[in-house]
Order: sequence, then C-alpha cells, then structure tokens
Amino acid sequence: MFGKLLLNVREKNPLVHSITNNVTVNDVANMTLALGASPIMADGNVDDATQITRICGGLNINIGTLNDITTKVMIEAGIESNKCNHPVVLDPVGIGASKYRTDFTKELLDNVKFTVIRGNISEIKSIATNSNSTRGVDASSADKVTDDNIDEVIEFSKKLAKNLDCIIGITGEIDIVCDSERAYILKNGNSMMSSVTGTGCQLSAMITAFVIANPDEKLEAVVAAVSTMGVAGEIAYSNMEKMDGNSTYRNRIIDAVFNMTEVQLDSGIKYETR
Amino acid sequence: MFGKLLLNVREKNPLVHSITNNVTVNDVANMTLALGASPIMADGNVDDATQITRICGGLNINIGTLNDITTKVMIEAGIESNKCNHPVVLDPVGIGASKYRTDFTKELLDNVKFTVIRGNISEIKSIATNSNSTRGVDASSADKVTDDNIDEVIEFSKKLAKNLDCIIGITGEIDIVCDSERAYILKNGNSMMSSVTGTGCQLSAMITAFVIANPDEKLEAVVAAVSTMGVAGEIAYSNMEKMDGNSTYRNRIIDAVFNMTEVQLDSGIKYETR
Amino acid sequence: MFGKLLLNVREKNPLVHSITNNVTVNDVANMTLALGASPIMADGNVDDATQITRICGGLNINIGTLNDITTKVMIEAGIESNKCNHPVVLDPVGIGASKYRTDFTKELLDNVKFTVIRGNISEIKSIATNSNSTRGVDASSADKVTDDNIDEVIEFSKKLAKNLDCIIGITGEIDIVCDSERAYILKNGNSMMSSVTGTGCQLSAMITAFVIANPDEKLEAVVAAVSTMGVAGEIAYSNMEKMDGNSTYRNRIIDAVFNMTEVQLDSGIKYETR
Repeated sequence: MFGKLLLNVREKNPLVHSITNNVTVNDVANMTLALGASPIMADGNVDDATQITRICGGLNINIGTLNDITTKVMIEAGIESNKCNHPVVLDPVGIGASKYRTDFTKELLDNVKFTVIRGNISEIKSIATNSNSTRGVDASSADKVTDDNIDEVIEFSKKLAKNLDCIIGITGEIDIVCDSERAYILKNGNSMMSSVTGTGCQLSAMITAFVIANPDEKLEAVVAAVSTMGVAGEIAYSNMEKMDGNSTYRNRIIDAVFNMTEVQLDSGIKYETR
Repeated sequence: MFGKLLLNVREKNPLVHSITNNVTVNDVANMTLALGASPIMADGNVDDATQITRICGGLNINIGTLNDITTKVMIEAGIESNKCNHPVVLDPVGIGASKYRTDFTKELLDNVKFTVIRGNISEIKSIATNSNSTRGVDASSADKVTDDNIDEVIEFSKKLAKNLDCIIGITGEIDIVCDSERAYILKNGNSMMSSVTGTGCQLSAMITAFVIANPDEKLEAVVAAVSTMGVAGEIAYSNMEKMDGNSTYRNRIIDAVFNMTEVQLDSGIKYETR
Repeated sequence: MFGKLLLNVREKNPLVHSITNNVTVNDVANMTLALGASPIMADGNVDDATQITRICGGLNINIGTLNDITTKVMIEAGIESNKCNHPVVLDPVGIGASKYRTDFTKELLDNVKFTVIRGNISEIKSIATNSNSTRGVDASSADKVTDDNIDEVIEFSKKLAKNLDCIIGITGEIDIVCDSERAYILKNGNSMMSSVTGTGCQLSAMITAFVIANPDEKLEAVVAAVSTMGVAGEIAYSNMEKMDGNSTYRNRIIDAVFNMTEVQLDSGIKYETR
C-alpha cells in the first residue's frame, strides 16, 4: 500500500520547490531526483520565487540558514503557494536555538497555512510551546521519544495537529506522523543516520513530493516518505563496507532511495497506529 | 585531436572564476579540479568579484539561484572580464521559469559580451525568443532535440550564434555546439545523467577552462568540454555496481573526468559536423 | 598522546559554529560529524548568529565567500564568542586575492581575538605583511615551504604568533603549527588532497572542535587536528581503487576521519618539534 504511493511519485514526477539552507541544498536536490521528482530552488528574490512556486506542485520551506532576503522570500512564496492550493511543508531547523528563528517561525505560521510540519521532537515542542530546549540543530536528549513517553508525545502531537490544522511529523529513533485523529508510529532507520548532515532536510523535500503526488492520502503520503527514508537508511547500512564512514553512507542512502522498489518499501516498513 | 585540448587544460591549469548557484557550487569546484583547472568563487561583493576576476583566466556565470546581491556581482564581474579580454561563459539556468530570470538574462546580454552560452534547448530558445517554455530547470519535452528536428535546431542555433556573436552549446540527449558557420552534433552521455543535479553547471565550468586553455580553437574547445562530460557519463555508468544510484553516479562522473586520458576522449567521442 | 585528544572530541561532542563559505559548507558539516562533534551554521543574521554562538563551544570563521551580510555576522559573532571565552578560529581563504578580503581580514583582526589562524603559506604571509601573493585560493608556488626555507618560515610564524597572541597553522605539503615558542613540523597527508575542494575548510572546523574539547592543551589540539586530517588523507589514498578519482577521494577522507582510532592517529603521525 505505501509502495503504491512511492510509485505515484515516480509516475507523476512532481516539481518540488525547496527554499532551504545552504548547508544541505545539494543533497536535497539529489534526493528529490532519487525519488523520481524534480527539484528547483529559488531563494533570493520574491518575484523569482513566487513565479517559480506557481509552476511547481508544492513548496518545501526549511529555516536552517536564514537571512533578511530569504525570510521575505519564504513568506511570499508560502502565501503564493497557498493561493495556488499547493501543499506547503515546513522544516523548522534549529527553532528554539535563537529568538530570530523562533520569531520568524511564528511569522511564517501567522501568514502561511502548512500542510505538514516535520522536525525533531525538540523543534516540534518549540513550535507548540515557544520553549527553547534545542541544542543547536539536534534534539535535546531530555526530549527524546521513548516507549515510555510515547503516549504523551502522541497526545501532544495530535493536539498540535488539530491546533495548526496540519500533519505533524516528528522524526528521530522513533518517528511519529499524525493528524488530529490518527497517529502512525514508525521504527525504521539506523542510528548512523545522525552522523550524516541533512537527512532531515532531504526528508522534508521527499514529504513534499509524496504529498503532491498523493493529494487524497496526505497522511499516508507522509508516512510513506518517512518510511522510504528509514528503509533506505537500513538498506544503505547493510551495504556499508569496512572502510566506509558517514560520507559514503550519505551517498548510499540517496542511492537506496533511487533504487527503492514498491516491494522493498512495503516489506521493510515497520509501523503501528494509535 | 580533442584529447590534445584536454591535455592543454591539464598543462595550463587555468584559474576559473565561477559565479554560480548555491545548489551545485561544490560539485562545480570539484569538477574544475578533476579537469586539472583551479576553481575560485566570489559571488557576494562587486569589489571582491571584479578583483578576483582579474587574476583568473575566465569567468563562468550561472543564474541558477539569484538575488539582488549576486545579480550586481555577475554584471560587474562580466564587464570586468570583458575588459581583460577573458572568455565569459553564460549558463542561463531556468531562464523562462520566471520573468526575473528572463529580464536579468537580457540585462546580462546587454552589458556583457559572452564567448559561449550553454543551456538545455528550452533555455537557449528562451534566450532567442523570450519565450517561457521551460519547466523549472529541465528542458520542456516539447522542445526536445531529435533526429527529425535537428536540422531546424541547427539553423536556429547558428542564427543565434551569429546574432550574439558567440558559441552556442545546447546539451541534452543530443548535444549541439556551433558558431555562426559550423555545427558539431554530439551523441555521448547516458540518460542517467539527468538524475544527477548540476551536471550542466559542472559542464559550464569545464567549458570555461577549455576555452581559456585553448584560445585559438574556441569552438573545438567547447566540443571537447561537452564530449569530456559525455564520455565521462558513459565510463561512470559502466562502473556502476548493483546497489549504486544517482549519488554514487555523481561521484563516478567526476572521478571519470579526473582519470580521463587523451586516448579515452579521442576514442570515445561520437560526433558529426554540419 | 594525540590520539587521546581525538578521544576527548568524541567524548565531549562539542557544538561547533562554522560561519563559512557556500562552496564547501556541506563537507564542513559532514567532517564535523565524522570527528564526533556537532555542526551548526548561521551566517545570515547578526541576532541569529550571536545567539547560536552562545550555545556553541567555539566559532570557526572562514572568509571563502563573503558578502555585506556575512561580513557583519562574522564580526559580531566573533565579538560575542570572545565575550563567552570560546575559542575562535580564522581561516583567511583567498586573503590577498582581493583588497576586499584583505581589508575585511584586518577588520576581523582589529575586532576579534583569535585562538588559531590556519591557512596556506601565502594566506598566512598576507596576514603578516598585507602582501598580495596568493593565486586565488591556492598558495603561490613562490611561497612554498621546503626543507630549505623551513627555519625561516618557523621564525616568521613564531613571530606572527607572538604579535597576534594566537596559534598559527600553516598547511601544505609540510605543515607547521606553532605558538610564539614552540613549533611542530608535520609531514602527513597526500598530494591528491589538493585535488579536493575544501579540505582546508574542513580542517579549520576540526581544529575548532579539537580546541574546544582540549582547552588546556590548545597547541597540541591543533597539531592533533592537522594530523588527523593528514593521516586520514593517507588512509583514504590507500583505499583508492583503480577508477576512483577526486570525488570518491573526498568521501574517503571524511570516512577515514569517521573511522579514525586513537592507535591509527598515534602510530600514523609524523612530526618533529623546533
């Protein structure tokens, strides 16, 4: 069933506009291509970005590196994307690490309706509470999702999904994807993924592509995107050789998505619902 | 013969100034090094960029991601490069996807004399006609160069080369390189190259290096650059293993250029002239 | 002994703020992770960057690509980092290639106290003399450190270290790391490292991590960082296969740092002191 959603991405080849950070932008582009979608990035001028947004199927906004040019572009492209009824995804990288990021995310949420918000648990908590518990761009260990606190996290996530009328994706060792009513708990992936910069950024672009290609099953589309990344992380790890490290692992994750089949995804996905 | 032009790049080690987009800039730098040239990038300040332009052998301007800072830098560095009689290459990424890009490209063409303009067929058509047929950064399928329409495309390209007094490079499944009088039709490469972001951006930097190193044979220098990329795409593909995907392919293309010999290029190149 | 300093990085997992260039920023992030440290980058807004600097252990400033936004951010983040008593590292990429870079570096040195300055010999000479001998971002061959001129270079470096009250790192075929009194001469590495863009940028981030994690042995921490990169370059080269080139080599260097053991570093390091 989730494999079918992946095939839809490959068949429809959606054009994904990512306004993202300058650290991981190249990997975001290659991962978008690996999935069978097409990437475009325009982050420097409002006219350029809004016009390009119109010819795309959806927009992925990532706040990993911001300046006074890109923040304006993100707001206007988001508004334009809303006007076009395109899905818009938010990746609030490092929100809570600075007032500037927290304030800007609030401004984004006030002006743009998001279809999906994906981050680590600390980032999602920051969005809900305006707390400042993040340690840079990584989740705070105090926030970690475990089998013990998962019911609590799901309740919090469903409530946030309801308040913001969007799908929430919390990724980490355990992933949670939910709307206001249903939650998926996902347990794919490999701990070495945290040694590769930008797997989260790549995932947000993948989510955008999946949601564009599967407009009638948005929640399942996000689950499929998160699982595609998780299963790819497992396959890539199983392909690692003795001298390989995090740089080769980065390549092998993208390669695994490029080669991912419907069967691999459907047989590899580990999930339950609540 | 074309292999000799590659050896000239390796012997002269030209310094190439690329003012390019933030998506593929790292690959552009590593590809410039793979070729035996040296990369430098200065895109943020007019004084910095014009001074650096002076110590380089040529300039590569790529409009893949623009903002109000980089557009000024591109214009002034282009003018400075013209004053120095350096070759200047234009890669009009995504022209036609937004009015901002189309207008800026016109401003560039009004102020800077280009030695070579390289793009996909839709981008080159946009330059000639101010049409808006591009789908993001990829060529529109309606524009595709085939054996059926190739005579027409060549005629159009030679006319554009005459009007702009420069060499035109149209790359895709079939590549065309021409000035106002002679056209080369090139059929190297592999379809998987379209699953790697930035092969076009890399090629434009390679063209700049080849033209700097071969000032008396500019048309053949562009042909040699395009062929080096095409043959590298074939060699890289032949080196792919079962689990490899587009990320590893990206690395193998650059690796293949790094290892490319005069004999590999001369025996691998597939071309005819019209 | 140096291997222990590497283990300290892995155990303390320092958060390193790199305000760096857009060419090699992704490799800087992955190399920081390979080392066992955590990267964060905020280069676009003074408030964002200074707040993020506060939660980090140290700051790495790299002037490879500058604009009027990032220069302000670098100055203010540097001042903030000084207030926090964090180590601050300067990588003066391409200083001497333009007046803008030379002037800005002077402004940096006037406002920010650096713990370590690392560059190639031409860059370090430019800092000392305001000379303009660099050829782009590579060292001028006229400046090359050899066994013949090394005593002279060491004397010059110790004097500069004294004048600026910091540690000086000069990297190239032969590396020199010194404070005003002691100099280490290091001979690890492989000549192919010069065919990979950004190994210097990566090294400056590594130095920052090492100095944060080893506050009482800063000089040895810099030596350990430089040696980790050099030994990794040797290991990576020994892992190269027939068709591999500079792109695969880039990955293998990062991989080798990821897998580097205390024993590998201590047995691989080649140094003498003066």
